[in-house]
Amino acid sequence: MDNFNYYFDNIHLLGIQGMNKKTIQSILERAQYFNQKKKNRKNKILKDSLVINLFFENSTRTKASFEIAAKSMSADILNISVSSSSIKKGETLIDTAATLNAMHPDFLILRHPNSGAAEMLSKHVECSIINAGDGRHEHPTQALLDAAVIKEEGINLEGLKIAICGDILNSRVARSNIYLLTTMGAQVSVIGPPTLIPKDIERMGVKVFFDLNSGLKSSDIIMILRLQNERMDGSETPSKREYYSFFGINENNLKLAKKNALVMHPGPMNRGVEIASLLADNNEISLVKKQVEMGVSVRIACLEMLKLSRNKLLK
Amino acid sequence: MDNFNYYFDNIHLLGIQGMNKKTIQSILERAQYFNQKKKNRKNKILKDSLVINLFFENSTRTKASFEIAAKSMSADILNISVSSSSIKKGETLIDTAATLNAMHPDFLILRHPNSGAAEMLSKHVECSIINAGDGRHEHPTQALLDAAVIKEEGINLEGLKIAICGDILNSRVARSNIYLLTTMGAQVSVIGPPTLIPKDIERMGVKVFFDLNSGLKSSDIIMILRLQNERMDGSETPSKREYYSFFGINENNLKLAKKNALVMHPGPMNRGVEIASLLADNNEISLVKKQVEMGVSVRIACLEMLKLSRNKLLK
Amino acid sequence: MDNFNYYFDNIHLLGIQGMNKKTIQSILERAQYFNQKKKNRKNKILKDSLVINLFFENSTRTKASFEIAAKSMSADILNISVSSSSIKKGETLIDTAATLNAMHPDFLILRHPNSGAAEMLSKHVECSIINAGDGRHEHPTQALLDAAVIKEEGINLEGLKIAICGDILNSRVARSNIYLLTTMGAQVSVIGPPTLIPKDIERMGVKVFFDLNSGLKSSDIIMILRLQNERMDGSETPSKREYYSFFGINENNLKLAKKNALVMHPGPMNRGVEIASLLADNNEISLVKKQVEMGVSVRIACLEMLKLSRNKLLK
Repeated sequence: MDNFNYYFDNIHLLGIQGMNKKTIQSILERAQYFNQKKKNRKNKILKDSLVINLFFENSTRTKASFEIAAKSMSADILNISVSSSSIKKGETLIDTAATLNAMHPDFLILRHPNSGAAEMLSKHVECSIINAGDGRHEHPTQALLDAAVIKEEGINLEGLKIAICGDILNSRVARSNIYLLTTMGAQVSVIGPPTLIPKDIERMGVKVFFDLNSGLKSSDIIMILRLQNERMDGSETPSKREYYSFFGINENNLKLAKKNALVMHPGPMNRGVEIASLLADNNEISLVKKQVEMGVSVRIACLEMLKLSRNKLLK
Repeated sequence: MDNFNYYFDNIHLLGIQGMNKKTIQSILERAQYFNQKKKNRKNKILKDSLVINLFFENSTRTKASFEIAAKSMSADILNISVSSSSIKKGETLIDTAATLNAMHPDFLILRHPNSGAAEMLSKHVECSIINAGDGRHEHPTQALLDAAVIKEEGINLEGLKIAICGDILNSRVARSNIYLLTTMGAQVSVIGPPTLIPKDIERMGVKVFFDLNSGLKSSDIIMILRLQNERMDGSETPSKREYYSFFGINENNLKLAKKNALVMHPGPMNRGVEIASLLADNNEISLVKKQVEMGVSVRIACLEMLKLSRNKLLK
Repeated sequence: MDNFNYYFDNIHLLGIQGMNKKTIQSILERAQYFNQKKKNRKNKILKDSLVINLFFENSTRTKASFEIAAKSMSADILNISVSSSSIKKGETLIDTAATLNAMHPDFLILRHPNSGAAEMLSKHVECSIINAGDGRHEHPTQALLDAAVIKEEGINLEGLKIAICGDILNSRVARSNIYLLTTMGAQVSVIGPPTLIPKDIERMGVKVFFDLNSGLKSSDIIMILRLQNERMDGSETPSKREYYSFFGINENNLKLAKKNALVMHPGPMNRGVEIASLLADNNEISLVKKQVEMGVSVRIACLEMLKLSRNKLLK
């Protein structure tokens, strides 16, 4: 088991940007392996390792997913969240992390509202940093699990037509997915209102659509993004109802895409805002449940990968 | 150890209602077994199992009790509470639970303010649901631990005279206890102000008393319920002081009950409201400490029971 | 390993006051042993033991440090903090602790805003209480880790000149350190504004200085205390900026102390208030990182010590 080769030579997982095809393929393959029945319950890969979940933003699924992954690998894991910590006392991110680093964890899994927080941290600690979402920047394990689910469906990423729909501007999920999918040879479109699409997004190798009809056309998969509450009734979108009428995906407008097109959502979903409730519950079309399931397996693979590169690089 | 027969054929523990005498007896017997010195520290019954504590209400004792039970059985356990989760982001109970379910826990222990939440969930997940309190509905492990403590005192439930005193209307503890105690052949009275006793409670097989004097008469055991803060100075009770003068139990009015009558309280106690402080601390009369202790043992038994029925039913 | 002799005969660790030299020496020696590379990862000393972290105040480092220590010793550990517990429902400290005690933990690690809380608790429970900070009273493991770091630097405590600088009045860290350092034969000075130094502090065997210049003179080590936010702009100190100009330690005024003098800080630091940011980051002079690291090792030693005395005393 220790001989699996991830073709990865970094002790941190900070983003998808710059990751090559071979590395991505190996992670997906390994995640699919762990996702087989009971393969993700229970191994000794991280026996004697210490993992710290350091979350500066609320999260159920990502935090739980990493925690379950770490526990299934027999690691010790600590959860530290902002509300119950001395960050309230005004300590800086760096000081908090340096403090935790001095307790010799092997992994520090960081979620932080500032873009670039994970990379900055990685320069101040000896442990491996996993970026579990930093501001609008990246959320690499989300993109990896999305791709692993697509592969698990028997779909090839090369040449696949994917539309990412919603708040592209503020979404780290969108950015990580765009990096990964374009690297793997998929054709990526982004769909959303002009206020929620960055001006220069074409440089990332994607097509831009401001209306759903033309955007969905001939798509194999639609990735629906969560609309953040704070944007629902502000200047960026007129209202929940308006947003739904223009960009909400339902079983009806899904017909604009290819026959048998599938939908994905990183969760948590706003039913009736970016996705119709009926569609969300249609497990023939929606891959949401499989995304959560694969999330644990992908994180097991990423933790294993970093452990292996630490062993290789720090020897 | 795996051969203990609980006479139970459900993968969920949602309530006491409908549970038969034989099943209840087996759980109590097994809980008493685990409650013997050190028998609840430490076994491998849930080795490789994953337990999730999903609490939508504050709780110290019930949450800690389940966590200690699960850990003593060598399970991995996750704690998820509302305040640190994406429920704040507006996700529904079902979506949260479906998300967690997709991470393949073996048990989901749910506390939720809505009556019926546990049963509703059980229809959407593959894991075993344990109801750790749902609104005003049921709190089955509390009733089981109360009964196990009574048996541990050498007292027979059949024919036992028990008075439940306080806010019957809003109490899931009262409902679960009434189901259990009447099933086991005890004679149950309820005592409280008319505003806090449901109109049709006699149908559950209990006698109703609106004053303490007649209610306590000839009782072997008095179960004192917690008066919720939000009812203390509202329309339901005039004030803390008034409530205490009419329905607070102390060593003096306890003399109205049988000689050597015992008192129980599910905790946390409001000293000087529903129970006198001196009485709460009198371990000759108060079984409160033993209830907490038995709580861990009962939860170990319930987790074992569900594991065994899963093995039987899902094969 | 079980034969290490701590010369300690109490099942609780409530403070440094009254602890003799031999005991302190043994703890420091043992902590240094655990602090050697990988010695604090991972042993079976607390296999089958249950540890509860009961924190009534926010804390990152102390809570995490105890949790990592307990996990590295293979204990089960529960974290209970005020915000997610029924303490909000008005339960008293004693009732909360009695409840947890009835679940048979081996250790209860308590942080509480009231001075004397740990000692009071110790009279109501059977488990071992470790005081992790009680009001302005004591924080024994902090003083022990500070001393262990000094020893680890090859510095003898006997005859050492140490200045403790800042809010002495409200600091449990200062009190525990004064007890420990004077017991070990160090010469302790305290430096701070008159409003933040208790009137009768000389009785503890320390010299008092109201200005930095004379206080730092000939000091080998300066322990800088955290200035609590609530005192920064109140009546006790004029403002952050004023405090820094009079009592903030930087690389410049440090020259007033002995050549090669070192600085310590229990964290979290207020950079630019009690310590200059550059100095905080200068690992040649600042022992802050080593203090955090030693924190885990000292707590492992303390947990082992109490386990051994329980075995001895309760047999």
